[in-house]
Amino acid sequence: MSKLLNAACDDINHPVIAIIEDSDEDFYTFMRATKKLNLLDGSPYNFLRFQDGDEALDYLFREGDYKSLQAPLPIAILIDLNLPSTDGREVIHRVKQSPTLKKIPIIVLTTSNSLYDIQTCYQYGANCYMLKPMGAFEMQQTVQVIYQHWFQFALLPSYGQFSP
Amino acid sequence: MSKLLNAACDDINHPVIAIIEDSDEDFYTFMRATKKLNLLDGSPYNFLRFQDGDEALDYLFREGDYKSLQAPLPIAILIDLNLPSTDGREVIHRVKQSPTLKKIPIIVLTTSNSLYDIQTCYQYGANCYMLKPMGAFEMQQTVQVIYQHWFQFALLPSYGQFSP
Repeated sequence: MSKLLNAACDDINHPVIAIIEDSDEDFYTFMRATKKLNLLDGSPYNFLRFQDGDEALDYLFREGDYKSLQAPLPIAILIDLNLPSTDGREVIHRVKQSPTLKKIPIIVLTTSNSLYDIQTCYQYGANCYMLKPMGAFEMQQTVQVIYQHWFQFALLPSYGQFSP
Repeated sequence: MSKLLNAACDDINHPVIAIIEDSDEDFYTFMRATKKLNLLDGSPYNFLRFQDGDEALDYLFREGDYKSLQAPLPIAILIDLNLPSTDGREVIHRVKQSPTLKKIPIIVLTTSNSLYDIQTCYQYGANCYMLKPMGAFEMQQTVQVIYQHWFQFALLPSYGQFSP
């Protein structure tokens, strides 16, 4: 079973992949690609979406509305760079400076191919940097490469921790 | 053109992927898999192998025999964990603490599936952790997933820097 969660506490039995993406269009293009590839069938992972950096940070650091949340931390984070409020670069920087959060893999998925952005993200500790392609077929290819690498082959650090 | 370099200064026109692997058997299994998949045909990358952690660190930090080396830093590092002299975990730790080297992606490829090793490597800043499979076919699959993700889809930070 795999699904898009509406809230961070909706399903604590399955590991969560957090997606931080403000654009509805880009988010649903991504989700359509995962469905088209049948990547979700039999997958143990749920997706949880955040539309801005501040809310994502509150969720990750268990602050604000998420202060009492007992759900495990996500096993991985997919993040866009240009976000309302705290932007993606700063989210990466803050997560990778936290001793508890830094081991969560962060996959950047963005339209920016600026060398400055690429270098800054790796310097801040992002685990990889992928270009968000134009076109549904290209998006499917990218999603398949990300999914296969990170969720079928790589060994991930954990999804059992509750608080930073 | 793509090849296995014998020395760090053999070809400064093509970006280098450093492979830190002490086992001849594992190294040649890896290289056979890349050849079988034709991943090297038309690839711009060269491989440069180090058999222990100390020599790899000298190369990366431009110390010891590599003090005067003017060749660019590698664009990525593939590393085994159990190495003679400085082991892989410590190499990752030292590289990721260096402001100049930390943005180089480090891909762990090891037979260890210990949760402690997985968590330690991500905590030290390794970019991903892959299990070295038994069997030639499984190795081909793993090499293909790594190659496709890191060297065909991901945007890498640079290969133009000369010194730490």
